[in-house]
Amino acid sequence: MIFKAHKAHMNNLSNMTKTRICVIGAGPCGMSMLYNYANMDAGSDVEIVCYEKQTTWGGLWNLTWRTGTDEYGEPCHAGMYKHLWSNGPKECLEYPYYTFEDHFGKAVPSFPPRPVLLDYLLGRMKKCKKDPTQYIKFSTAVRFVKYNESEDNFTVTSTNLVDDKTVTEKFTHVVVAVGIFNSPNIPTFPGIESFGGRILHAHNFRDAGEFKDQRLLLIGASYSAEDIALQCCKYGAKNVICTWRTKPMGFKWPEGIEERPLVQRFDSNSAYFKDGTSAEVDAVILCTGYLYTFPFMDENLRLKCTLSVYPEGLYKGSLWLGGGNNKLFYAGIQDQYYTFTMFDVQTLWICNYILGKYEKLEMTEMLKDSNAMVERRKGLKDCHDDIDFQSDFVAELCSLTDYDKRCVDARSLFHKWEHDKDENIKTYRDKCFASIFTSTMSPSHSSDWWNAFDDSIKTFVGK
Amino acid sequence: MIFKAHKAHMNNLSNMTKTRICVIGAGPCGMSMLYNYANMDAGSDVEIVCYEKQTTWGGLWNLTWRTGTDEYGEPCHAGMYKHLWSNGPKECLEYPYYTFEDHFGKAVPSFPPRPVLLDYLLGRMKKCKKDPTQYIKFSTAVRFVKYNESEDNFTVTSTNLVDDKTVTEKFTHVVVAVGIFNSPNIPTFPGIESFGGRILHAHNFRDAGEFKDQRLLLIGASYSAEDIALQCCKYGAKNVICTWRTKPMGFKWPEGIEERPLVQRFDSNSAYFKDGTSAEVDAVILCTGYLYTFPFMDENLRLKCTLSVYPEGLYKGSLWLGGGNNKLFYAGIQDQYYTFTMFDVQTLWICNYILGKYEKLEMTEMLKDSNAMVERRKGLKDCHDDIDFQSDFVAELCSLTDYDKRCVDARSLFHKWEHDKDENIKTYRDKCFASIFTSTMSPSHSSDWWNAFDDSIKTFVGK
Repeated sequence: MIFKAHKAHMNNLSNMTKTRICVIGAGPCGMSMLYNYANMDAGSDVEIVCYEKQTTWGGLWNLTWRTGTDEYGEPCHAGMYKHLWSNGPKECLEYPYYTFEDHFGKAVPSFPPRPVLLDYLLGRMKKCKKDPTQYIKFSTAVRFVKYNESEDNFTVTSTNLVDDKTVTEKFTHVVVAVGIFNSPNIPTFPGIESFGGRILHAHNFRDAGEFKDQRLLLIGASYSAEDIALQCCKYGAKNVICTWRTKPMGFKWPEGIEERPLVQRFDSNSAYFKDGTSAEVDAVILCTGYLYTFPFMDENLRLKCTLSVYPEGLYKGSLWLGGGNNKLFYAGIQDQYYTFTMFDVQTLWICNYILGKYEKLEMTEMLKDSNAMVERRKGLKDCHDDIDFQSDFVAELCSLTDYDKRCVDARSLFHKWEHDKDENIKTYRDKCFASIFTSTMSPSHSSDWWNAFDDSIKTFVGK
Repeated sequence: MIFKAHKAHMNNLSNMTKTRICVIGAGPCGMSMLYNYANMDAGSDVEIVCYEKQTTWGGLWNLTWRTGTDEYGEPCHAGMYKHLWSNGPKECLEYPYYTFEDHFGKAVPSFPPRPVLLDYLLGRMKKCKKDPTQYIKFSTAVRFVKYNESEDNFTVTSTNLVDDKTVTEKFTHVVVAVGIFNSPNIPTFPGIESFGGRILHAHNFRDAGEFKDQRLLLIGASYSAEDIALQCCKYGAKNVICTWRTKPMGFKWPEGIEERPLVQRFDSNSAYFKDGTSAEVDAVILCTGYLYTFPFMDENLRLKCTLSVYPEGLYKGSLWLGGGNNKLFYAGIQDQYYTFTMFDVQTLWICNYILGKYEKLEMTEMLKDSNAMVERRKGLKDCHDDIDFQSDFVAELCSLTDYDKRCVDARSLFHKWEHDKDENIKTYRDKCFASIFTSTMSPSHSSDWWNAFDDSIKTFVGK
């Protein structure tokens, strides 16, 4: 652990008497940032303000019935849908100091539906030493972040959406924690404008029940396509065709789901595929991922690369080396296997860094460190390589902080989970995992996932 | 006509050597602004730059298959749908100096489908003395407009969405012409989160065919509800219930459409109405209007009132009296009967004003003028009053410019059109009107609107 207070660094916070940290986003990652700050007694010279567009915290775990834009005309942030269950075991994201057993008073199954995970997230925040809500400005959208060279600080322009008031505030540090699933990527396809049925991006998918008895075409071969195909099949779609660009998902699909190479064009309700086949479909769901975009950041502060487990230009996966004098951070902005625990340790590292607990390095050293990680990333071949890479990344952050190293034991759980999915995509959510921290084996759910239509906390937790 | 060049006004453009006009939006109103500018030989000391978010001009008349957000993650601007035909006679919006006969080389029916109107709009722009595309930056979103007190000018921050570059430019004048149909108003209703079917705002309605055989609930009692109810019925919806808050539309609906007092709550697929009745519905379409919002304008430049035929704080319905030293204009931002011609004469007045062709008035005089109009507006009782009010407003602008006064003859056409709708909502689009400018009576369409399923220009114009 490197905990040497670096005076030169502290003195750099020159023009403002206080260290003022701006956090953008109060989803799981922003919540970790606030949790760490609230628990660390940073002193009265360090302030934190978190801006959150939504009316409450929890980020993408909040479900809204609205699509497109919200009640204030802002693009809907969360693309959550009804009936979503975690697609990974909860043991892989369990907080070391607040386990699911701590939260529910008993062991619960490994794959929770959305309301259970949200409840757990919110429950953990109640364990803060100080009330973290005091730091948050809800229903407030950040419009623009600018670095002031002469003052070595940031001007953050934000709008309170309720009273439509726009204000600017100055901060010494900015932490961008807006997540990676908020701005849908909506590519076009020849003839799609002639398609006679409904077309939507997965971000606007709300309820599989809307597609009962329909013939669906899902464009994409990642998590959204995988889960929405299963959901729709489970909730009575007539059939689902998933179409892939690079490679098929390749799971042993239940009856009613198939994969075909990329759709080439549409002609009214007919879709034509690369293998020469065609199909009549009623609706098209674009599971084409998200834009990796930060439009509210000034040009020179904006992370511009593609999503990966280690984006270019970030020291320790967090500190932006492209501008802002080492006072701008992107947190939870990498492609993720680890989530809650990675956000925890990453934001703990950020807190420590801001408070000057690390020896300050030259830019060349930080770039060298970052570039070495990016080089290693480029050699990753499959999801198992990705899991090992991210496990090492989390382990390194644990070694630089006092975060519980056991969280990296999730590594073997992730590998097993991938094998479970390959074995049977319909039943992998019925598997049980043991908590890393309590060693308790999770119980089975009262019904297998395919036949579970009740997403309530009560049913999931049991009596 | 008041055409006295006012030196004091001209000299006020002090800190910048040129008059630089920023136009936000290249829909029908922004297009009028550019058309007027291009045709008026303003001199080399007057520049104009128009920022348009979409990839081309035509504003709300462009049809996209996307919903929610566009290819750049920006909220979709236009809420246009397939099969939309003008809901008012084209004779009410015909340009004096470029008639439909000029455009198509022959007389055409009075109620054109969308592609015909867009074609006409684009055709008129080709008649500019100078190529107006030179003034436009497409795919460029204005992020922030700020007035600089000390320099008496504006800083406009915009982002080119294609290359993701953000720049700032200074202007002496700003004309906001973003339209009034871009940011959907999406209120909530008790229990709506439990609704089991599709919920969408009219802004995201794309094709009535998506709702074939379905039972629909439309919330709202204005133009969107009126037209979407008819569309869906025409394209095979099982039935449509429109629900109203203030008063029913009250038309003699075709079979399959009915009106009920406001929905009070939802419970799964059941909707419960204020009159104690209930109904099972498959989809809910919120025809609840638009937010009247200009989030990219700085606080002190932002029009904040409700939509009406004469919004508060605008001199001659255009010049913003709330800030920006009489150099900020809101064009085409009033509730509209008149459209293309009103945009033409309004932006002509704005051009004249900017070029100093009017005697400059004291703020108190302008406020008095504006307030008198607002007071008159408050007394308006129905659509016929509104039509007369807006006719007088357009007539006044004609008298202040050299715009063709005959355009106000649309007044009697509007009154007749309202009566036609009251008489038969299903057939009002089959009526024929005579051009104000050519006196040619429009021919009938080859089939009545209810049985017309071909929206092409070719079929509409005929051989």
